[in-house]
Amino acid sequence: MNSSTPQKLLAEALGTALLMAVVIGSGVMAERLSGGNVAVALLANTLATVGGLYILIEVFGPLSGAHFNPAVSAVMAWRGELPLATLAPYVGAQLLGAMLGAWLSHAMFDMSILQFSTKLRGGTGQWIAEGVATFGLLLVILRAPGSRVAAMVAAYIGAAYWFTASTSFANPAAVFGRMFSDSFAGIAPSSALGFVVAELIGAAVAVGVHRLLSSPQSAGAASPSESTSARHV
Amino acid sequence: MNSSTPQKLLAEALGTALLMAVVIGSGVMAERLSGGNVAVALLANTLATVGGLYILIEVFGPLSGAHFNPAVSAVMAWRGELPLATLAPYVGAQLLGAMLGAWLSHAMFDMSILQFSTKLRGGTGQWIAEGVATFGLLLVILRAPGSRVAAMVAAYIGAAYWFTASTSFANPAAVFGRMFSDSFAGIAPSSALGFVVAELIGAAVAVGVHRLLSSPQSAGAASPSESTSARHV
Amino acid sequence: MNSSTPQKLLAEALGTALLMAVVIGSGVMAERLSGGNVAVALLANTLATVGGLYILIEVFGPLSGAHFNPAVSAVMAWRGELPLATLAPYVGAQLLGAMLGAWLSHAMFDMSILQFSTKLRGGTGQWIAEGVATFGLLLVILRAPGSRVAAMVAAYIGAAYWFTASTSFANPAAVFGRMFSDSFAGIAPSSALGFVVAELIGAAVAVGVHRLLSSPQSAGAASPSESTSARHV
Amino acid sequence: MNSSTPQKLLAEALGTALLMAVVIGSGVMAERLSGGNVAVALLANTLATVGGLYILIEVFGPLSGAHFNPAVSAVMAWRGELPLATLAPYVGAQLLGAMLGAWLSHAMFDMSILQFSTKLRGGTGQWIAEGVATFGLLLVILRAPGSRVAAMVAAYIGAAYWFTASTSFANPAAVFGRMFSDSFAGIAPSSALGFVVAELIGAAVAVGVHRLLSSPQSAGAASPSESTSARHV
Repeated sequence: MNSSTPQKLLAEALGTALLMAVVIGSGVMAERLSGGNVAVALLANTLATVGGLYILIEVFGPLSGAHFNPAVSAVMAWRGELPLATLAPYVGAQLLGAMLGAWLSHAMFDMSILQFSTKLRGGTGQWIAEGVATFGLLLVILRAPGSRVAAMVAAYIGAAYWFTASTSFANPAAVFGRMFSDSFAGIAPSSALGFVVAELIGAAVAVGVHRLLSSPQSAGAASPSESTSARHV
Repeated sequence: MNSSTPQKLLAEALGTALLMAVVIGSGVMAERLSGGNVAVALLANTLATVGGLYILIEVFGPLSGAHFNPAVSAVMAWRGELPLATLAPYVGAQLLGAMLGAWLSHAMFDMSILQFSTKLRGGTGQWIAEGVATFGLLLVILRAPGSRVAAMVAAYIGAAYWFTASTSFANPAAVFGRMFSDSFAGIAPSSALGFVVAELIGAAVAVGVHRLLSSPQSAGAASPSESTSARHV
Repeated sequence: MNSSTPQKLLAEALGTALLMAVVIGSGVMAERLSGGNVAVALLANTLATVGGLYILIEVFGPLSGAHFNPAVSAVMAWRGELPLATLAPYVGAQLLGAMLGAWLSHAMFDMSILQFSTKLRGGTGQWIAEGVATFGLLLVILRAPGSRVAAMVAAYIGAAYWFTASTSFANPAAVFGRMFSDSFAGIAPSSALGFVVAELIGAAVAVGVHRLLSSPQSAGAASPSESTSARHV
Repeated sequence: MNSSTPQKLLAEALGTALLMAVVIGSGVMAERLSGGNVAVALLANTLATVGGLYILIEVFGPLSGAHFNPAVSAVMAWRGELPLATLAPYVGAQLLGAMLGAWLSHAMFDMSILQFSTKLRGGTGQWIAEGVATFGLLLVILRAPGSRVAAMVAAYIGAAYWFTASTSFANPAAVFGRMFSDSFAGIAPSSALGFVVAELIGAAVAVGVHRLLSSPQSAGAASPSESTSARHV
């Protein structure tokens, strides 16, 4: 990670934009082609997301860490792996990228660029699901060996699209970007806050469980950066 | 594996819970969305299980060995790779985790938490299938190189969902957990014993075939822990 | 490969049996569940085969080379990588295993054990397809780096199920085993000879193209065993 | 890459032919079996392409670089990684291979060999999509570590089949080859120019973004061949 800060922010914005273009674009394509079979549509949406997420993390990981996700950036800042002063610019780049990615998918599918989702998502089950989804994502990120993190995050999200009742947004920037698309993958702006709160709680629980599993005797082996992060707690 | 015993038990319980949440949750989602096409539902259930199992073994393997399965723990204890005194706590953690995982999936999908499956599974073919499924799983675990075991177990279970007539439970803890869910992936409590007996027979046959393939001249190369396990036979 | 010859033959027979159980069993399951959508059935059949083939090559490769296929064994014997005296026993073990694997799948799915396929397969297109399928398989095997051969063969067969008009048997032992199953994956005995001849031609062409691509200046780099095999030509 | 130039051209022609046979052949198979569900057909087409592309890059990469794509060859020539004098022969081999691959798939599926697509593809959205698709492909190729490039390109194209409105041709040779097939994957000759222009623009933008992300301080780490290519700018 010898990139300059502007390069990192470009990587976060571009990566998040492409991630949103993959998620929303494949949802549009899947819905158009599936003839009303939602399971087939979600299968296609899942496979596209898994493939896209894998390569985006591999491509942008060496530049910016490939967070694409304010919850991940917040945890990394809390652990001391992201300078605190860089957190806000990272989140800004992710939110901007997410919105631009939604618009890019609309441009590709000849839809009106500016739109807002009308798909309500919420209720106890969905909020629990978003918490579980984000808990799992952060646990994977915190414990994955560096050389496998891209494959593991992609595989995890592929599973989470199906096993969580919310189809696993697990990312406040993704919630933000999907608000701008009245399509298969969208979420109504009025449903956004509940999802984001659930995600942040899930991320916090993951940090706690990670520490439980790591301290004290295995800390060195399982979590090489624990000592670094300890300075910030 | 420098983790303390409580950390290992937490890893087994949490990992088995998440595995059950993946298996049962994705089954619920798939059944709801598939419009009655069972093949599409099982495809989605399979892909979610493959992705989930892969990351759970990668994440929890360095902590507890990522058994999530009493048949695996029993074989490991018999081979001397798990202290005999730890076998019962491992199995207890797995069973507890499996039940909690079923309940977690119900909470996410707004279903009543406590329920029991009414899906009868059994008969000669299904029992043979469960034996074959568990035989294959143990053979993969006993012979996989450590760095590929997660990918290989996940790929194996993905295939076994389809080629065995029982959709490959291959895990007494999974049988236990799925008893608590009256959904796509469930199994009626009255059908549980037959499945578990078949699984244990399959596991025992795998141990025998593994020894046939390993002894005597290739023991060193193919099975580095054979000498350790020999002390316990 | 320090295994004794009986261990190698057991590995070939068991591996081929499990491969046939995967191919035929997943075909039966897919046909039963797919409600008449053949594309969905073949998708499931494909994914099960890809997963099964991957783990079978990883598991049995270090023991016997994991041929499971007389065309592969013949090429390896011709290249000097399999002793000529072992070729016939290898092929015998593969054919026996293939038949037993078909019977195992019937036992699991409560079908009558002994049956013969009535599915006619043939004609110019299908024969060309079988030749292309086996050409591709052998080219992959001859040129894959050892550490990736399992993943590459599995990925290749997954593609070949769809891009060849014959769904890519690419294996005379698979033709033999599938003759014994009157199900989705079967082939009528009267169609077998045409498929096997096409497969052997495809394999021979692959050996020729491999030599064209390897000789002379890149022989050392691309094909480390070329010098060994040269002694047998 | 110690191969002679004729070996490299054979590798490019054969690889591109097999790639087209996979893309077109699996499209024909999928359309025939899917009973009119286009999403299921595109899923099968996607999975076959992902598997085929992965093994073709692994097999032919060490010989010719496995471009199979004039846009890739042009970028490599511009970066100094392909001698300028070899560019035209590479492109010729790719175009010839693409046409022969289309014909091979027709031979396998008992279709008339010589045919031209009547499927019109175009409009602002599709052109933007082709630009985005090729931009992403080149960015992956320029930034992927060598040992993962095959898996990454395959995963990328799998995602791009779904998230781009054009199903991601991303390759002028693929446009050329698909003109010769009046089937699922075809493109009418009158639509070809728009696609090719969009692809070349996308490739050029990828080169620019790659330089933005690489220069100056991280050039050494992220792009080892930057210094080589710099001599040609």
